[in-house]
Amino acid sequence: MLGSSPVLANVIDFSSGALSEVGEVLLRRVSDLVLLFGDKAAAEVLAEGDNPVVYQVFLPPEREPGRPEALLYATTVIYPGKVGDEYFMTKGHFHVEGECPEVYLGTAGRGMLLLMDRHGRAEAVPMQAGTVVYVPPETAHRTVNVGDAPFVFFAVWPEKAGHDYQSIAAHGFSHRILEEHGRPVMVSNPDWRQP
Amino acid sequence: MLGSSPVLANVIDFSSGALSEVGEVLLRRVSDLVLLFGDKAAAEVLAEGDNPVVYQVFLPPEREPGRPEALLYATTVIYPGKVGDEYFMTKGHFHVEGECPEVYLGTAGRGMLLLMDRHGRAEAVPMQAGTVVYVPPETAHRTVNVGDAPFVFFAVWPEKAGHDYQSIAAHGFSHRILEEHGRPVMVSNPDWRQP
Repeated sequence: MLGSSPVLANVIDFSSGALSEVGEVLLRRVSDLVLLFGDKAAAEVLAEGDNPVVYQVFLPPEREPGRPEALLYATTVIYPGKVGDEYFMTKGHFHVEGECPEVYLGTAGRGMLLLMDRHGRAEAVPMQAGTVVYVPPETAHRTVNVGDAPFVFFAVWPEKAGHDYQSIAAHGFSHRILEEHGRPVMVSNPDWRQP
Repeated sequence: MLGSSPVLANVIDFSSGALSEVGEVLLRRVSDLVLLFGDKAAAEVLAEGDNPVVYQVFLPPEREPGRPEALLYATTVIYPGKVGDEYFMTKGHFHVEGECPEVYLGTAGRGMLLLMDRHGRAEAVPMQAGTVVYVPPETAHRTVNVGDAPFVFFAVWPEKAGHDYQSIAAHGFSHRILEEHGRPVMVSNPDWRQP
């Protein structure tokens, strides 16, 4: 039968991001992200202390591994927290196949989706439960938790998109999301250089 | 800026399916679906009476019209109701580009996703808020409201998939979802013939 596979259906817990059928869980602590935060000294202190979990990505067992037409999906939970004034965030990436877009849907908490094109033009899109954002082609994307509770979202993207984390690891984002006077603001990153 | 387009972000009302930024709304009444229900006489009576709305599909303004790598998304709300013993349902379709899958996510109510491969093998997957279903390639899909409240889901699919409603209009599904003793059951459709 069509459904003999255990990965045809899944159940998301909108508030935690947990999946009923999990293939892989990625867990990122501050120590995994030290070089990405603006205040690396503050990141080091956190990493050498409690080294908190910044985010987790829940991936289902892959339905159609390697098939270029396949779609993939995942949930991500970013926990509330900051490194200095910078909110907890994901690494962020371009797609290897840059023409591939992605669709995000917020399910809990308050976040921002930081988008950046190849020229460093950036935008921060506020997200909460019900917000859908279309990640355009050739656009790096990083999510940030700007609230006091876990920020959770669901994402769907083409299998063939791939993840290019290296460009971000090497060059960063042109902008950062910082807390100023209790509110999130997007500020330019003086260390960023166009690749 | 990346976000000068009004269609980068959207907000879904999980309980009604409504979008903050709407491009098109499809509205299907019983009169549009008479030939799809098993009890066509009952459907005719309803169509000539109140002719209730069976479902609505909310589509955002299209972000990247005609680009084959684009993703599309929509919300669908199926209202509670029956034609005879058969629950209110969508028309259902194959994809024109049959290799393209689709991802569904329930956001409210109780439904079933009826899947059927090219040989008529079928499966009914229960859905509620948080249920994700991967619609496999070469698989027709129809959704059914089996509850007492609106059943709402979010779907993401590749632009190039296209919709083949004609196969279903001509041949139907091999199975129907009927209410028996107050519960949904999948029963074979004696009128179905393999194309």
